[in-house]
Amino acid sequence: MTYVDIVTALALLQFMVFGFKVARARGRYGIAAPAIAGNEIFERYFRVQQNTLEQLIVFLPALHVFSHSYSPLVAAALGAVYLIGREIYAVTYVKDPKKRELGFLLTVLPTAILIFGGLFGAIRQLK
Amino acid sequence: MTYVDIVTALALLQFMVFGFKVARARGRYGIAAPAIAGNEIFERYFRVQQNTLEQLIVFLPALHVFSHSYSPLVAAALGAVYLIGREIYAVTYVKDPKKRELGFLLTVLPTAILIFGGLFGAIRQLK
Amino acid sequence: MTYVDIVTALALLQFMVFGFKVARARGRYGIAAPAIAGNEIFERYFRVQQNTLEQLIVFLPALHVFSHSYSPLVAAALGAVYLIGREIYAVTYVKDPKKRELGFLLTVLPTAILIFGGLFGAIRQLK
Repeated sequence: MTYVDIVTALALLQFMVFGFKVARARGRYGIAAPAIAGNEIFERYFRVQQNTLEQLIVFLPALHVFSHSYSPLVAAALGAVYLIGREIYAVTYVKDPKKRELGFLLTVLPTAILIFGGLFGAIRQLK
Repeated sequence: MTYVDIVTALALLQFMVFGFKVARARGRYGIAAPAIAGNEIFERYFRVQQNTLEQLIVFLPALHVFSHSYSPLVAAALGAVYLIGREIYAVTYVKDPKKRELGFLLTVLPTAILIFGGLFGAIRQLK
Repeated sequence: MTYVDIVTALALLQFMVFGFKVARARGRYGIAAPAIAGNEIFERYFRVQQNTLEQLIVFLPALHVFSHSYSPLVAAALGAVYLIGREIYAVTYVKDPKKRELGFLLTVLPTAILIFGGLFGAIRQLK
């Protein structure tokens, strides 16, 4: 599970960095907590973090479940696609939210493969 | 842990479906990202997804911890109640947020049993 | 992993309590779902819960990964710092969002140690 642990830690670090960027954007665009709106660019950083939260809560358990049935190396490779996809998502979303599709797909697709793979792998083990 | 893995994968799929419904509601009610408000029905879909996120982050680790001390089949049965409760929650919330109580209870109760069961199970193993 | 399971269950309980406080604040300050704004004190309770969600999604997997390489007791001790930090964060944030730094640091620091420790531990096992 070493490869899975490394991908897990990297995905957590990536999410923390997105969080620090939200904090920095609070200062830069003058949005004091608890406000979460009021400046378009701040809101983009905030939505990148929130959307990554929504992805991470699915990605990490799916990575885990998948690796119970299939090779942890394959799981980690799908995880690498997720990590790159999130970076693309974050960069493009802040520039222009309408261009977030590619990065979004590159995180949703590996996650979907991990979920369905994990589900079928577990069902197969029931027999 | 096969039963626990199946329930985990189903809960992740359910959450992804709620996410797709938010994306669809964005288009249908004309709420372009990064806005998360402006139409009552869109906001309901969004709150269903957000509330499920809040539940999922508790439910999945609780399911895991509980199954370290008790039968994975019992854990999975409690998980099935959670899954049904979330479906009821989603359907009723979109119709009328005031009617969300039943679905909410059917997700909070099994999760509370999983947490307290997991906590007592782990403490008992300390001895 | 008993110590890690206990800390996990306690962190989940703490988050649930923060959620109940949001629900109570909805009633007390007259913010009916799906609204998430409109009263400063309600928004503080809501942001405490949301920020804890953002921390929890990182803290729990990091705790898990760290304990694969190092003593679960050390992991649990770092987890205890996280739990105390979150309590301080919640109390101070509701009183005055500007005073949230200490509680925030006491949750981010142990989590960062768990992530980097877990990452280096896993990388070392690759050899």
